[in-house]
Amino acid sequence: MSEAGVAGPDPHAFAALLCDWCLAVSPGDRVGVLSTTLACDLGAALHSAILARDAWPLVSLEPPSLAAERHLAARERHLTEPNPVELALVGALDALVRIHAPQSTTELADVDPARVAMLTRARQPIQEAALALRWCATLSPTPALAQQAGMGTAAYATFVRRALFLDRPDPAGAWRELSERQALLVARLERARQIRIQAEGTDLTLSVAGRRWVNSDGRRNMPSGEVFTAPLERSANGTISFSVPGGPRGSIVSGVRLTLKDGEVVEAHAQRGEQRLLAALATDEGARRLGELGIGTNTGIDRPTGEILLDEKMAGTVHLALGRAYPETGGINRSALHWDLICDLRDGGRLTADGEPVVVDGALEA
Amino acid sequence: MSEAGVAGPDPHAFAALLCDWCLAVSPGDRVGVLSTTLACDLGAALHSAILARDAWPLVSLEPPSLAAERHLAARERHLTEPNPVELALVGALDALVRIHAPQSTTELADVDPARVAMLTRARQPIQEAALALRWCATLSPTPALAQQAGMGTAAYATFVRRALFLDRPDPAGAWRELSERQALLVARLERARQIRIQAEGTDLTLSVAGRRWVNSDGRRNMPSGEVFTAPLERSANGTISFSVPGGPRGSIVSGVRLTLKDGEVVEAHAQRGEQRLLAALATDEGARRLGELGIGTNTGIDRPTGEILLDEKMAGTVHLALGRAYPETGGINRSALHWDLICDLRDGGRLTADGEPVVVDGALEA
Repeated sequence: MSEAGVAGPDPHAFAALLCDWCLAVSPGDRVGVLSTTLACDLGAALHSAILARDAWPLVSLEPPSLAAERHLAARERHLTEPNPVELALVGALDALVRIHAPQSTTELADVDPARVAMLTRARQPIQEAALALRWCATLSPTPALAQQAGMGTAAYATFVRRALFLDRPDPAGAWRELSERQALLVARLERARQIRIQAEGTDLTLSVAGRRWVNSDGRRNMPSGEVFTAPLERSANGTISFSVPGGPRGSIVSGVRLTLKDGEVVEAHAQRGEQRLLAALATDEGARRLGELGIGTNTGIDRPTGEILLDEKMAGTVHLALGRAYPETGGINRSALHWDLICDLRDGGRLTADGEPVVVDGALEA
Repeated sequence: MSEAGVAGPDPHAFAALLCDWCLAVSPGDRVGVLSTTLACDLGAALHSAILARDAWPLVSLEPPSLAAERHLAARERHLTEPNPVELALVGALDALVRIHAPQSTTELADVDPARVAMLTRARQPIQEAALALRWCATLSPTPALAQQAGMGTAAYATFVRRALFLDRPDPAGAWRELSERQALLVARLERARQIRIQAEGTDLTLSVAGRRWVNSDGRRNMPSGEVFTAPLERSANGTISFSVPGGPRGSIVSGVRLTLKDGEVVEAHAQRGEQRLLAALATDEGARRLGELGIGTNTGIDRPTGEILLDEKMAGTVHLALGRAYPETGGINRSALHWDLICDLRDGGRLTADGEPVVVDGALEA
C-alpha cells in the first residue's frame, strides 16, 4: 500500500467499524465513548457516526494524567467504593466503547500494587455494569504506545491501521471473513481432546476435552483475531518458553520459561523481571494454573508491540494465561491474576490437536 | 505584577477556588466537570482537588468540534428529546462546573438559528436538572477566546487570571470581600425606586421598586462581580446607547441604540448587525422588554472582550438585558431571548438611584 504508507487509521472509517461491526449501533441506542483527550479525533468521529445512526452519543474524554492520579490521590473512600457518577453513567448506556489512548504505558509503574488491586476491587461494580452492556475495547495510536512498541509514531499508526483491517477496501467484510474462518477452526478444535505445543524450549501438552472455544472476531476487542478456551485445570504437563516480552501494567518481563506438572507451575524463570513473575505466581492459588489457551490469527499484526490487546492476536502465535479463566469457555480457574504469555510459533514451532497439525511454522493448516 | 506578567490562571489555584468558593465541595459530593479537551489542565487539577476534598469527581471533556457537530448532525430525535445519557449523568450529581473552552467563538455562526433554538428547547430538561444542582459556569482561556478579545493568547490568559482574582494572595478572600461590598450596594439599591442612567447618547429611567437585587459574587459565575435585578416591566423610558459590542453566539452587533416607551422598545438601531438586532427583538413579545438591569463591579476586568460572562462584570459598566428575567429578582418578563447589552459609564456616564449617585464616571460612590 505504497500511497498510504504512513497513514494512520482514518477516524471516520474506524468509527464506522466500531459502530457497525463491533457494537451494531441501532436507532435510539445510548452509546458511551470513554477515553483520554488523546483520542479526541476518534471521539469526534464516533460522535458523528453515532448521531448518523440516530443513536445517542456521550463522548467522555479525560485528561490522560487521571489514570495515575486516580490511584495516587485516592483516599479511603475512593479505594473502597465505586465512583457513583461513573456507575450511573454506565448504567444509563446500551453500548460502550473504551478506547485505550495513554500518554505513557508506565503510569502505574511506581504505584503500590496493593493500591492498584484495591482500586480495581472497589471499581468492580462499574466493571460488571460495563460487561453487561454491548461493549468493545479498542485503542487509538499514541506516541506512548508507539514508544512501547519501539516504533516511530507514524509507523505505529500505520501498523495499527493494518491490525484493524482499515487498510482493506471493506474492513467490516474483512472481519466477517475472519469470523467465518475462525468458526471453522473452532469447530475443528471443539472435537479435540489433547493439545500439544512444540517449539524451541517448549514441549507442553494439555487437555481441552469438553471445553468451549470462543471465536473472538473483533466485536469485543478491536482488533481481535483469536480463538481461545480454558485448558482443563489439572491437565498441563511439560515446559513452555514465551518468546514475546510483556507483563502487567507496562512492566517488562521477558524470556519466561515455565514447567507445569498436572496443571500447576512447578518451575518458573525469566531472563528479565523474574521477581515480578514470581510475585505474580504468588498472587493466589489460581495464579499458578492456566486460565486460557489462545491461538492468534490476525495477519495484520506481524510483530509484538508490548500491548497485549494486539500481541495476543498476532497470527502464528499461541498464548497461555496464568490465572483467571473466562466462564464462557467452561473454565473454572479463579484468580485475581490474568496474565497472557505469548509463544511465537513462526520459527519452527507447531501446535497439534490429537496429533493433527493446527499451526505449523506459524501458519494455520487448512 | 511584573514577575507574573504573562502568567495565566494557575490550574491548581483555579481548581481550589472553584471547589471551595464556588461549589463548597464536601466529602462524598458527586461533582461533575464538563468542558472541552482544551480545558485539559484545569480538568486534571479539578480531579485532584475534588479527590483531595474526599468527594467524587467525574471529569468529562468532549472534542471541541462537538459544539457545532451537535447542531449540524442532529437528526429529528436529537432536536426533540434530551440526550438520555447526559440527563442521567447530570441527575447523578450534587454539583457541576461547566468550563467554557471553545476552539472557536463563531462555531454556530452558519447554523440555522431555528435549529439552534430547537436543540436548546430539546435540551431544556438537562438544563433544568443542572440548575437544580450547586453549579458554576466558568471559562478557561483558549486562543479563540483571546482572538475574540483581540488579544494575544498569553496576554488574554493573564487578563483572565486577574478577572478571577487569581493574581491576589487570597483569591477566595478577595471574592468574600467583593461579596461584602456588593451586599452593601444591594442594601442601598433595594431602598431605591427609580434608576436613571446617563451617558453620551443615553438618558433612560426605569423603576426597580419592590424588586430584589441579586449579589452575584462569583459562586455561580466565576468570575462574577455584579449586582442585578429586573426593572418593572412597563417602567423604562428614554434612550440608551450600548458602547460595548456583543451579540448572541459569537455574532457581533455594535453601536446599538434603543429607545423605550413604557418598557417597550419603540426604536432600535445598530451601526453593525442591525438585522440581527431586529430579528432578536422579533423573537417574541417579551424580547422587546427588559429582563435585567445589572451593575458591573469587577475591577480585574478593565476592557470588553466579546465574552458576556466577563464583559457584563466589568467595573464601571451597566447592562440591560432584552428578554427573559431571572425569577429570583421578582421580574416576570418571559422570552426565549436573554441578550445582555452593555453601556460603559467610565467616560462621563452616571447611574443614579432616586437622584443619588451610585456610579459616577465608572466609579461606585461610597
